[in-house]
Amino acid sequence: MVKKASIIIVGFGSVGRNLAKLIAFRNKIIEDKYDTRINVSAILDSRGAVMKEGGFTPYELLKLCELPRSSVSSYKPYGFPSAKLKDVYSKIIPDVQVEVTPSNYENGEPGLSDILYALKNKVNIVSSNKAPFVLAYKRLMDMASKNNVQIRFKATVMAGTPLIDLLNGLKGYDIESVEGILNGTTNFILTEMHENLLSYSEALKKAQALGIAEANPDLDVKGWDPAAKLVIISNVIGQPIELSRVDRDDLSRLDIKEIYKAIKENKVIKFIAGLNIKEKKASVKLTKIPREDILASVNGTLNAVKIRTDVNNITLIGKGAGGAETAHAILDDLISIIKVI
Amino acid sequence: MVKKASIIIVGFGSVGRNLAKLIAFRNKIIEDKYDTRINVSAILDSRGAVMKEGGFTPYELLKLCELPRSSVSSYKPYGFPSAKLKDVYSKIIPDVQVEVTPSNYENGEPGLSDILYALKNKVNIVSSNKAPFVLAYKRLMDMASKNNVQIRFKATVMAGTPLIDLLNGLKGYDIESVEGILNGTTNFILTEMHENLLSYSEALKKAQALGIAEANPDLDVKGWDPAAKLVIISNVIGQPIELSRVDRDDLSRLDIKEIYKAIKENKVIKFIAGLNIKEKKASVKLTKIPREDILASVNGTLNAVKIRTDVNNITLIGKGAGGAETAHAILDDLISIIKVI
Repeated sequence: MVKKASIIIVGFGSVGRNLAKLIAFRNKIIEDKYDTRINVSAILDSRGAVMKEGGFTPYELLKLCELPRSSVSSYKPYGFPSAKLKDVYSKIIPDVQVEVTPSNYENGEPGLSDILYALKNKVNIVSSNKAPFVLAYKRLMDMASKNNVQIRFKATVMAGTPLIDLLNGLKGYDIESVEGILNGTTNFILTEMHENLLSYSEALKKAQALGIAEANPDLDVKGWDPAAKLVIISNVIGQPIELSRVDRDDLSRLDIKEIYKAIKENKVIKFIAGLNIKEKKASVKLTKIPREDILASVNGTLNAVKIRTDVNNITLIGKGAGGAETAHAILDDLISIIKVI
Repeated sequence: MVKKASIIIVGFGSVGRNLAKLIAFRNKIIEDKYDTRINVSAILDSRGAVMKEGGFTPYELLKLCELPRSSVSSYKPYGFPSAKLKDVYSKIIPDVQVEVTPSNYENGEPGLSDILYALKNKVNIVSSNKAPFVLAYKRLMDMASKNNVQIRFKATVMAGTPLIDLLNGLKGYDIESVEGILNGTTNFILTEMHENLLSYSEALKKAQALGIAEANPDLDVKGWDPAAKLVIISNVIGQPIELSRVDRDDLSRLDIKEIYKAIKENKVIKFIAGLNIKEKKASVKLTKIPREDILASVNGTLNAVKIRTDVNNITLIGKGAGGAETAHAILDDLISIIKVI
């Protein structure tokens, strides 16, 4: 028996479009493999919404992906300029709301309010937006539990590499520490500095030219992004730490001379995000590590995490960013929810 | 609200005893963290059973672990010599049956019948015994689904390193291949051959002296164990392959001269278990890999797996065997089941 689910997508940038394409291309495969049909019945961006009860066809989804940013509401006859989330809910109560607006660590908005609105309406949530989980994890979990709906967010950490699932599979263990490379942009910059001896600003320019770094790279190079991921990890393993308590280095201050020095010592400088559970400490620090350390060979935009428990050390390596990877993680969360609703 | 669950343990060798100790020592912590209380109300071995409605105390569990093999039924006043599973069920219908007898790839017994008996009685299953899943995966899953109970088996592959959870978290992806080092014993032998230039038989003796290899090492060195794990993995990702179709090398035939040759070429010989989904092929082969390959640096009893998908490559490294690690994986499965029953 195929389970059908109506979803709405809030946010239609790179991740939202990758998700719409993935659903358009893979809906038949998902239906065959998981007996699950995903109908996208509304998409919202900052200027309005498109809505179609029963869901858009794959063709319509691909057409929507061709529109310029912030213009889904221009799509006729389904567009509703200036429509907000509540306007969508007045016509469609979805099974799952997908939250893919950008992370805003000031106040979590608009994602936080959007998620709270869905939960109040007893709608399940899948999110790739980190900020609401960094700022209000317990509140969101409690509200989801009270309203008997699911809230999933595996795409927030390591994107398509399922670290959250891995951590959830370690309930038998005492996790002592989690440490690794949790930001692809800064790891790419550091790799360029080591391998091509570029200065920080040259390496940043290269990353920006390749679309790996944002025009304003502060969230990455000042360590906010990996710090936010540590906060989410700390909550998942039940030992929450606040974002303001994560000690962060600033990669933009790293002098190329430090790289020369590390190379001479047969070492590598990495931007290491670390969570020490016993000491309740978290940090994102420029750290000189030996070349034999497995993290030393994790280069470019690759991410890696080492989990130390009371009886085992586990290492997970994989891509930690990217629209396609993030969309795949969201799709996995969607399938998990739809299978049980 | 604390959920209480009555469990019975079938098999009381290394894994069963590690599990009993883990539950004895950690029950309070599990109760605080997961609102779950695990009561061990019966343990069976090849010669009988002990039973106590309401569950054994931590002290009693530790006392039971001190008994010689196959003698739990001597424990007074709770022992029942010659008691079988049906005798236990006539007094206690548990919430979960834990199956930890050894893997028997001839016919899956006694594990297969024990598991089927539990499922027929609508009892949830957690197993570290690979054979029933290798020989009758679909039958077991169908029966569990029909009887509306859960069947979990993450301890069967990589023990305490949650590869199964990781694979279950990749539903959005097309998995193309899974390959790696899935047997700690043979990896230890190969590591000794490379690092200390021991012959196969010298390295085997060392592994046996350390308790890493069995007196009869055939299941490991002839590749049955990693082949069985590939079969389970193939079923988990929905592309089942039969055990007889896994092409296996025999490590005992490896001449030390091959190792010398590999070292000269700056390569490493590993016993690589590989599953190619598109070609529907599986093999466990002695493979010469470059030193830069991450699998080349996975030594001793460590395991590692590389998962290739349509948009991501994921590597997972961790211990793949051991009584304590296996017990932790079983405990995780137990908590997952108890949380939802």
